[in-house]
Amino acid sequence: MSYTKDDILREGKTKIIRCGPDEESLIMCYKDTATAFDGAKKEDLAGKGKLNAAISHKIYTYLARHGIETHLIGVIDDTSALVKKAEIIMVEVIIRNVAAGSFSKRYGVAEGTALNNTVIEFSLKNDDLGDPMINESQITALGLATLEELAEMAGQALRINELLSRLFAQAGIKLVDFKLEFGRSSGKILLCDEISPDSCRLWDMKTHEKLDKDRFRGDSGNVLDGYQDVLGRLKNV
Amino acid sequence: MSYTKDDILREGKTKIIRCGPDEESLIMCYKDTATAFDGAKKEDLAGKGKLNAAISHKIYTYLARHGIETHLIGVIDDTSALVKKAEIIMVEVIIRNVAAGSFSKRYGVAEGTALNNTVIEFSLKNDDLGDPMINESQITALGLATLEELAEMAGQALRINELLSRLFAQAGIKLVDFKLEFGRSSGKILLCDEISPDSCRLWDMKTHEKLDKDRFRGDSGNVLDGYQDVLGRLKNV
Repeated sequence: MSYTKDDILREGKTKIIRCGPDEESLIMCYKDTATAFDGAKKEDLAGKGKLNAAISHKIYTYLARHGIETHLIGVIDDTSALVKKAEIIMVEVIIRNVAAGSFSKRYGVAEGTALNNTVIEFSLKNDDLGDPMINESQITALGLATLEELAEMAGQALRINELLSRLFAQAGIKLVDFKLEFGRSSGKILLCDEISPDSCRLWDMKTHEKLDKDRFRGDSGNVLDGYQDVLGRLKNV
Repeated sequence: MSYTKDDILREGKTKIIRCGPDEESLIMCYKDTATAFDGAKKEDLAGKGKLNAAISHKIYTYLARHGIETHLIGVIDDTSALVKKAEIIMVEVIIRNVAAGSFSKRYGVAEGTALNNTVIEFSLKNDDLGDPMINESQITALGLATLEELAEMAGQALRINELLSRLFAQAGIKLVDFKLEFGRSSGKILLCDEISPDSCRLWDMKTHEKLDKDRFRGDSGNVLDGYQDVLGRLKNV
């Protein structure tokens, strides 16, 4: 699709949000930019936007089929989707099935360590502050969301974890952890943003090879080969 | 009191734990050392141990009178107390009535900002990791405490907040925030450690002058004048 500059409502690190055809919708466009460490590392990877769009659309369609309400209305083209307009809640939800990433670093637990239970974390959506972890009482103290909204988000996140863990397992992939964003729309809490190798840790079940953004974080190369592998495997399940 | 080196069970940043007269007790000795920023700043302030011991003993006696079970058995001398032996839970509880300190920094909220509700946080008791914040699902995932223990600790901490906010208010002091440690002893969760200007933020109610360890953190001088002021005011209520 082609747009004018005026269409742009906001531009984030990896996506551009444009005006939709009506007041209730927006157009979400995936960029090729890869970023890590709160934007300190940044690079354009040609084709990344297309891969993430395809993976995320596949996942959102699967989730919708299993009863999760998402913002996705429909796919526009290879890198764009029509989505419901929602007021983004400034709290992200992180689900962890295995210790990795910031969890491992913060608590001194080796990556790959099994956890006694699924971990659910909230973090403040604020790049300048480094998306710091935040808990329920802090969220309500700052007026970012209500306890009812947080319970709804947590419940949906755990249900999404069940569904996606099963989906990825069928593709021979372990869903290690992932991040979700939600928005308020017509009195409901809707799953927004994307679910892709940018927002999930995905390990090959047998070899534990990383297929996600950790390839970019760790300079291990072949970032998009990992993303392409994820998409290919999801197409076969 | 005089001791031999052999008495020492462990030495922390500001306290020494020695063998007690029997298997069920320990002797907790307050040192004069002041530390901040996870031990990066360290100084001996002559008389600090005595002041903290006096303030903490006064507070623990007050709490015991109001139904909180604490580890304090009795005062031995100016800097030592006999305490019940307990298995320290490696999770600290922080209560915040006003935004300050790490909360203000982490979430970009000006110190002194009113909060919609009392904030309760947990942090991992681990100096090497900088006592990072941790939530319930992370605590149980790592096997540090059970949900029942956390609920008991949170309930006690909120009750202690009510009691101490009232006590300090009578002394013209605002209890801004404070940190608690708990231990397991004979199947119960006991309040352990100390409550002092080292572990609380205490502001003069009218002038908002800081009377606590922030004087040391901020190099504002007269650290012990603040602690002496707190003790003097508590003696009069």
